[in-house]
Amino acid sequence: MKTQVAIIGGGPSGLLLSQLLNRVGVETVVLERSTREHVLSRIRAGILEWGAVDLLREAGVGDRMGKEGIPHDGCYMTDEDLMVHIDFKHLTGKQVMVYGQTEVTTDLYAAQDTMGTQILHGVEDVSIHDLDQTQSYVTFRHEGEEKRLDCLFVAGCDGFHGVSRKTIPEEKRSEFERVYPFGWLGILSHTPPVNDELIYSNSRHGFALASMRNENLVRYYVQVPLTDTVEDWSDDRFWEEFSRRIPSEAASRLVTGPSIEKSIAPLRSFVSEPLRWGNLFLVGDAAHIVPPTGAKGLNLAASDVFYLHQALIDAVKSNSQTGIEEYSARALQRIWKAMRFSWQMTTMLHRFDGEDSFAEQMRKSTLRHLADSETARRDLAENYIGLPY
Amino acid sequence: MKTQVAIIGGGPSGLLLSQLLNRVGVETVVLERSTREHVLSRIRAGILEWGAVDLLREAGVGDRMGKEGIPHDGCYMTDEDLMVHIDFKHLTGKQVMVYGQTEVTTDLYAAQDTMGTQILHGVEDVSIHDLDQTQSYVTFRHEGEEKRLDCLFVAGCDGFHGVSRKTIPEEKRSEFERVYPFGWLGILSHTPPVNDELIYSNSRHGFALASMRNENLVRYYVQVPLTDTVEDWSDDRFWEEFSRRIPSEAASRLVTGPSIEKSIAPLRSFVSEPLRWGNLFLVGDAAHIVPPTGAKGLNLAASDVFYLHQALIDAVKSNSQTGIEEYSARALQRIWKAMRFSWQMTTMLHRFDGEDSFAEQMRKSTLRHLADSETARRDLAENYIGLPY
Repeated sequence: MKTQVAIIGGGPSGLLLSQLLNRVGVETVVLERSTREHVLSRIRAGILEWGAVDLLREAGVGDRMGKEGIPHDGCYMTDEDLMVHIDFKHLTGKQVMVYGQTEVTTDLYAAQDTMGTQILHGVEDVSIHDLDQTQSYVTFRHEGEEKRLDCLFVAGCDGFHGVSRKTIPEEKRSEFERVYPFGWLGILSHTPPVNDELIYSNSRHGFALASMRNENLVRYYVQVPLTDTVEDWSDDRFWEEFSRRIPSEAASRLVTGPSIEKSIAPLRSFVSEPLRWGNLFLVGDAAHIVPPTGAKGLNLAASDVFYLHQALIDAVKSNSQTGIEEYSARALQRIWKAMRFSWQMTTMLHRFDGEDSFAEQMRKSTLRHLADSETARRDLAENYIGLPY
Repeated sequence: MKTQVAIIGGGPSGLLLSQLLNRVGVETVVLERSTREHVLSRIRAGILEWGAVDLLREAGVGDRMGKEGIPHDGCYMTDEDLMVHIDFKHLTGKQVMVYGQTEVTTDLYAAQDTMGTQILHGVEDVSIHDLDQTQSYVTFRHEGEEKRLDCLFVAGCDGFHGVSRKTIPEEKRSEFERVYPFGWLGILSHTPPVNDELIYSNSRHGFALASMRNENLVRYYVQVPLTDTVEDWSDDRFWEEFSRRIPSEAASRLVTGPSIEKSIAPLRSFVSEPLRWGNLFLVGDAAHIVPPTGAKGLNLAASDVFYLHQALIDAVKSNSQTGIEEYSARALQRIWKAMRFSWQMTTMLHRFDGEDSFAEQMRKSTLRHLADSETARRDLAENYIGLPY
């Protein structure tokens, strides 16, 4: 097999990159470890920056998002009953879009199918070769056969556990990591959202987030110890805990119901530099992880794709090297900004085991500062709605 | 002896309070443990918010400050060779005043002498009584005699180690504390400042601050381990270390010379609540300490004095209780804002022993964010020049 860009990973970043390249005639093949059903069953992020919205539209997958996505003008940061409204529209002139990652991925698969792009599922034992040569190739097992895919470039869109990052020799990588001492227990439930905008809630019982997917599907979270399992959390226990962590005004409106999904995710900040190794380019979670506080994960993958698709088009169609030479530095600039923001949001909103009363006061004072200072709210809003690409 | 307001502590906050009260005819007596020479020998802060400048003027001690003080329009936050200019004037329309605490105290003593206020030095064994009665009194030893000072109110301006805070029963106080794992080694030297505005410098070798008192007197600092003593730091060693921690552009202009003072101060955040206990009112360091990063210590004492002098005047002259009842909550609101700011500045600029590379990247990213975002610079500037009283 032969293509111009081999894309490892059929999640939203791999598919979006493929779609953006295909639309201008750059050939791709996508190699995905899991089944399509499995990819689409993963419940992930739900907030798109407008830059990501525009990029999805450019990729030709904006129609359903335009109909079913819900633009949000703001969100709330709260501390017990102090509710601070972050009015994105007023502070920045911009909005964000509530539209689940699963929906984005569904739309991208449909668009790629229409495009006729080869997407191989159930791909195993991927190995990347000759990255320092003019031509590279990827070997893998698929449907019981050893296969080889020749290519000019390889895009590593295969997530934190994927093979792409590990293909860069360990001594050539700089890795930065922070593992937070708690996780998020998330549930999906067919109930009306407790609030028309998201609520990020600090409380003496720990963090909670009231998020949503649509008018009758909520995504709610509570901070839990890493030692907890979903078996520790009956629906009743979840609703009780969630209810006491959000402002009482919101809690009084809470409609509960059975959960249709429940999972615990750890929180991690991680960056691996560089993003380029010869003909290999890392994208999204393959190179960096943010904690979900601030909703930057998918949006950061989208900005990586934005920089990389331009660079690869220039390289393939105009033989220009500038874009691919600058990709790593360019993407990392924006990545570190989102790392800082996500770390700051996480620190501002979570209770840390064993913290002293001073640390708690600093969280409360930071939220109070947001309440009192339009400048502080604007700083948060500018980062939340997404810095320019 | 008898007075209306007994003021414990003859540092800048006690003297300023006394002066503001005397000017409208409220009587005070000031009790100070040390000699006047000792009080004036303490090298402390050097940056006044404009609110403090206005308050000193209101107290009638603005003349020399107006002639010798140096208004500053901005300062620099730097990370290695990245220099971020925080332009106070452009961002907030305001300035700060470079004028040493020693000068403020000198001016206040002169004004109090003119006023004829009784300031007792060498006062020992201070004890405060009957705070829950209509009249209170203070006992102490002075010039070998036991003395008693009857009063309506007691202002505790006697610093972190003073007796005032400890007069409030321990079980009635909430204390919040953070001790930072490093100190500041500071020197005074008769040399021209390395820069016309202050430089707060993050570097891989630790924090440094290039501050000044006037055109030929600098106050420079480097972060040092708490285990260091001034004997560990020859002038040569200081200059070498300071030089490699500030941006090379600034270092190339550095003029060195002999130090005329050298001391190490620990960094601490501390708040004790409440500030009122019956007829006793805590002011400044007696109730709260900030790390010096951000220059809030003296300025926070000044805003406490601002709230308290109004409250005491209303109580003594109009028998109005509102001000004294609201003093603690009113002052604490502003205190916690300055606590947050000073903690954030300290965290953003210092190297912490044993920190991981992620923590270092977050500091660098925070400074990068300042460089890239006018909103972030404005947020810093609004807090640095001082929030409204």
